[in-house]
Amino acid sequence: MRVVITGGAGFLGQKLAKRLIEVGTLTGSDGQPHAITKLALADIVEAAKPATDGIAVETFVGDLTEPAVVERLFAAPTGSVFHLAAAMSGQCEQDFDLGMRINVDGTRGLLEACRKQAAPPKLVMPASVAVMGGDMPEVIKDDTATTPTNTYGTTKAICELLINDYSRRGFLDGRTVRLPTIVVRPGKPNKAASSFASSIIREPLQGDDAFCPVPVETPMWLMSPRQAVATLIHTHDLPGETLGANRIITPAGLTVTVAEMVESLRRVAGDEPVGRISFGSDPEVENIICNWAGRWESRRAGGLGFEGDESMEAIIRAFMEDDMVKPGASA
Amino acid sequence: MRVVITGGAGFLGQKLAKRLIEVGTLTGSDGQPHAITKLALADIVEAAKPATDGIAVETFVGDLTEPAVVERLFAAPTGSVFHLAAAMSGQCEQDFDLGMRINVDGTRGLLEACRKQAAPPKLVMPASVAVMGGDMPEVIKDDTATTPTNTYGTTKAICELLINDYSRRGFLDGRTVRLPTIVVRPGKPNKAASSFASSIIREPLQGDDAFCPVPVETPMWLMSPRQAVATLIHTHDLPGETLGANRIITPAGLTVTVAEMVESLRRVAGDEPVGRISFGSDPEVENIICNWAGRWESRRAGGLGFEGDESMEAIIRAFMEDDMVKPGASA
Repeated sequence: MRVVITGGAGFLGQKLAKRLIEVGTLTGSDGQPHAITKLALADIVEAAKPATDGIAVETFVGDLTEPAVVERLFAAPTGSVFHLAAAMSGQCEQDFDLGMRINVDGTRGLLEACRKQAAPPKLVMPASVAVMGGDMPEVIKDDTATTPTNTYGTTKAICELLINDYSRRGFLDGRTVRLPTIVVRPGKPNKAASSFASSIIREPLQGDDAFCPVPVETPMWLMSPRQAVATLIHTHDLPGETLGANRIITPAGLTVTVAEMVESLRRVAGDEPVGRISFGSDPEVENIICNWAGRWESRRAGGLGFEGDESMEAIIRAFMEDDMVKPGASA
Repeated sequence: MRVVITGGAGFLGQKLAKRLIEVGTLTGSDGQPHAITKLALADIVEAAKPATDGIAVETFVGDLTEPAVVERLFAAPTGSVFHLAAAMSGQCEQDFDLGMRINVDGTRGLLEACRKQAAPPKLVMPASVAVMGGDMPEVIKDDTATTPTNTYGTTKAICELLINDYSRRGFLDGRTVRLPTIVVRPGKPNKAASSFASSIIREPLQGDDAFCPVPVETPMWLMSPRQAVATLIHTHDLPGETLGANRIITPAGLTVTVAEMVESLRRVAGDEPVGRISFGSDPEVENIICNWAGRWESRRAGGLGFEGDESMEAIIRAFMEDDMVKPGASA
């Protein structure tokens, strides 16, 4: 079976690719395991090819909002799609049209390509905490209305609805999963408004300074990259009949305040790294992040076998094991 | 102030136009009353021009999914838009692409035209009961997640999200209102799956036979055309600040079962018209209608001064006063 990962050059796409190569199979719409024979990594830049033997890895470079690029990507029969490519929250807020073009029109183009496949592929798209905002209940439940107060969240909520209807119609076998803020991302800060949440752990551990732009009492709903990859694959493998008409899933995230994140860092790595964090305010980031929901309760996720991270300390230790660049080493 | 009504040739567009001519003013985003000086009725067919003195009524014929048509419609400065044009539920279910093109792409084109206006216009779009479906709570509340199980509802839920974000960004001052099933529509059956709900009252009163394609215990959430027009205008006139970031409004509908509708007809008009209704099943209609929510509770609507119809009998009497064609008279 051929598997496509969009955003395949990104850190999550790369981790997912490596994990798919390790597991070697995915569960199809027929409920049976299918061996992954081809893995296509599509992105706006050339994706690194993870080491494999047996699985053919192809890379596709191009803008997925261009129909010709999508057509080329889906020219071969494709069994599964992980659609990770998206404009991020900060970008979408700065440029509404870009957000709509990449996240809504780009996703629609991709869904149409899936619809044209001879057999409807499975498709997983991460949605986001950003689908909630503004006036919302203290705790977000499975049947809470989406109330995005930023363009990124709006585009993701629209894609959730589209993927539900494409699935209901049998054009594809889709599912969306509202990934929590992923912490700790490796590498450099990115254009997500939540980028700081990784920076305040990663930079101090790697010997650099970090800036926290939101009040420390802000609750964040988090998941480690390791758990996010497991969640994407678990979402993929669920039988469509179990999900029914509603393909929108809230997984098992971990709620901690920024202050608790910092204290966890202290417990894992001591006072020295914590001293590298300075605290202040960035109204642009605050305006997005402080409107996100920190507390979520998903009865459905529990029933569907989703697992979350054990603790903030476990998340930090996972970063130190998987991705940390030792202070002084070249990144 | 110039006011645009899309779907201006439709029965609701025509009733709204007449009512706007009667009231003569609308409340602008500045909270002040603005005299309506021009009324533009846009539709795929030529709209009838209601009688006026003082207000200039223009008609625009064209497909609003064509950019040139939208550009022409919005060439003059426009203060308010009632966007009633849409592909209906039955149509969207038969033709997914048509539903997406008219209801999503068409609305986006219209929102973009509003965004290009020198001053952001007010915009009202009716959404629908169809935004709910499938696994949903017994009673729909203001913060219940949209779970459309048909393409029409999907497109309307997407437009709700779009109008929220366009408003938040200040591109326009929009609001959407989830109109209940409008009963009793005058004229002929249309392509809405809910068309029967008007037919079972209208046809018997006008001396014709009618067919009820759903079980009589099906609850329906209803509003008279008279009340729908008042609701659209009330929605328009609400101050944006009162609504805040969430511009999605559930108004004050009336919940009755099909059996109660029939009994109300009997109380108002006797046994003879009720005898003209035959009862059976149409799986295509049932599949849409029996997935709609019959019971809604909108605390917000009460606080915002929305009013509903008094009773099913009152709805039937309103039809007899406003729209009924006497049996034997030419339609």
